Parts: sequence; structure tokens; C-alpha cells
Amino acid sequence: MLINSSQISAFEKRYRTNLINALSGFKSVNLIGTVNKKGQTNLAIFSSVVHLGAEPALIGFIQRPASVERHTYENITETGYFTINHVHEGIYRAAHQTSARYAREQSEFDETGLTPEYLNNFSAPFVKESLIKIGCSFKGEIPIPFNNTILIAGAIEQIVLDDELLMQDGHLNLQAAHTVAVSGLDHYYRAEELERLPYAKPGRRV
Amino acid sequence: MLINSSQISAFEKRYRTNLINALSGFKSVNLIGTVNKKGQTNLAIFSSVVHLGAEPALIGFIQRPASVERHTYENITETGYFTINHVHEGIYRAAHQTSARYAREQSEFDETGLTPEYLNNFSAPFVKESLIKIGCSFKGEIPIPFNNTILIAGAIEQIVLDDELLMQDGHLNLQAAHTVAVSGLDHYYRAEELERLPYAKPGRRV
Repeated sequence: MLINSSQISAFEKRYRTNLINALSGFKSVNLIGTVNKKGQTNLAIFSSVVHLGAEPALIGFIQRPASVERHTYENITETGYFTINHVHEGIYRAAHQTSARYAREQSEFDETGLTPEYLNNFSAPFVKESLIKIGCSFKGEIPIPFNNTILIAGAIEQIVLDDELLMQDGHLNLQAAHTVAVSGLDHYYRAEELERLPYAKPGRRV
Repeated sequence: MLINSSQISAFEKRYRTNLINALSGFKSVNLIGTVNKKGQTNLAIFSSVVHLGAEPALIGFIQRPASVERHTYENITETGYFTINHVHEGIYRAAHQTSARYAREQSEFDETGLTPEYLNNFSAPFVKESLIKIGCSFKGEIPIPFNNTILIAGAIEQIVLDDELLMQDGHLNLQAAHTVAVSGLDHYYRAEELERLPYAKPGRRV
């Protein structure tokens, strides 16, 4: 079937949101941990974390418009630090629950039972239960003018993970970490390995 | 274990690339189809496609620096159109092979056996074998100054998919589409459903 742009615009809001959110394919599931200057922690689930580059090591995510409350954004710009924590099969329900609209004075850590963990003198809280954790410093924000979202860029300052997840060539074993993926807003998946392919060169037949 | 930023900088290039590319979690796998004004087609695999917003319906991807050949970027800015095509279990090897450095006059369609398909008067080629295809118009480019990458934004003009993949509330059944995910640069996965969770509200225990 063909769905064109006028049909997309005419869809009921929730229907359109479901459809467009599913279109990009499987997405990563990460918890972003922050704290404000008063020590109030925040934890929020994001499916828009994206690799920006390896040298320098940069990672980003898309933040929704300024018209909604954005504790994550406020804490990052206030303190300059945030953590990105992989979500695995044991915590995806708690991770999803962080998307509820809690008041500013409530911490999603308290509300979902996930545990804030301060490691290696890093000022933002990691998620203790997560098996792959990334400490980032705020590199900058890039406004996306077409819909008033923002790309937040972070420099990777530290990586905390179980030794056995790091493979010999630097790659990570996400299946052993039970890292999950999401489709759309709410549909969670585990991943099962197909295969790792060699570096592609011209002339190879597939 | 802890890996800090000085260790990351000191890693051998390939090791660092593998590690940093795996850090964001599972990523979508999409083929971006384009054609230049002379009719020369191009097809390239991207793991950086990201949802930008549902109203208006926008989708984006990260394009590498201008210092490397970028046929996809050149064709998009020259013609104003591109397609995004989900990669499924039957075509992920061919999709990976599009990442080989083919010369400008070679089409990855010819080289990998994937079939260009022109549909609904859309000027950029879709991938016939793909089950979820998105026709986009070029909305604009946003430079990411920290590493000279670019966020390319597209407006969703049309969606082409099998009827049975569209669920009643607008969500897509990516497992039925056999859509794959990738970790790092080369590690392909199938997805197995855990569950779809309800909209999160404060006060719910998890």
C-alpha cells in the first residue's frame, strides 16, 4: 500500500505518532542520567541516541522542543555532564516507566527503583543496574529549525562495562549484555545474532 | 572495567572505531537510494537514521565529513529527493556490500543485485526487495561543527509497505517484516519481541 503525505497529515495524532516513530527501524534504548546543582537527580529513556563519530569520540541524541518540560536538557546545560546507560532485558520495564510525566521534584530513580551510582569522580549519576555505561561531557547543542528539536552532542569521557562484554577488536557483545532494542514508542525486542560480516570491498559477490 | 578518554584516544584506530560505533546500542539498518541528474543511481547503507518528529513527519541521518566521497549527499543536494528502505534478513548481506568503495560510475544496485524500483512518480529509486520504503524530500542540512559531519533532514513524502505490516493503531510490525538491526559497523541481528508496554503514567509500580 501507498501512504502519501496528505494522508499522513490527516491521520489522528496518536496514529501518526505511532507510524512515524516506527519508520526509522529498530532503535537503541538508553537511559540518560543527570543531576541539577541542588543534587536532584533525573533519569529519562531515549531511543534517539546516535553515533556521531569515533575521533573525537562523540555521541548525540535528539531532544524534544522547548515547549515541553525537559529536565534532562536543563540539567545538562546547567552542569555540563550526563550519562548514557544501556537498557537490558532485566530493566526495560523500569526504563519505560521513566517516560511518565513526573514532577520536577520527583526523581525517576526513586519512582522506578533504578539505582543512581556515582563512579570515578564523575558528577552525573550512572544507572547501577546497567551493564554498559557512558559518561559524557556536554559538547554543545545544535538546533534543528524544522521542528524546534535539538541535537545534543556529548564527548565520551568514560566507559564503564563488564570486562567480558569487550571483544578483542574493541567491538562490544551486546547480546551477552542483553541490551534491548525498541520499535516505535513502546515495543521492546531482544536481539538474536545473525552474523558479523567482513569489511566490504568492491568486487565481492553476495 | 573503566575506560577513560585518554585511553580512548590512544587506542589503535580500528579498535577505537569498533568500540565507539558499538556504544550507542542497537541501530537501524537502512538503504538510502538516490539518483543524479544523469540517471546514475546510488545505494548506500546507513545505521544513523533517526526519528526527528511526527508533526511534521521528519526523518534524518548523519552523513560523514565532506573529506570523503559522498555520492548519497551529492545526489540528494542535486535532486532534492532520496528513499529510505528497511533492510530485512533476506538482503542484509547485499546491503552490507553497498558499503564497499565503488567508483562514482558504478551503481551499488548493479554490484549487489538489489533492484532499483521507481514508484508513484517518485524521482529517487526505491529498493524493490525492501518491505518498508520511505520516499523523502530534502528538507535541509545541519552541520555538526564538532567533527564536520552533517545531519540530513528529510520530509516524509510517501510510505510504501505491505498492508499486513501496518497495525491497527498505526504502529508497524517490524518482526513480521524481518527488519534487522546492527551493532557497531558489521554485526547483524534479528529481533525477537519481548512485549509492547502501555503508555507510562506516574504512580505505576514496575
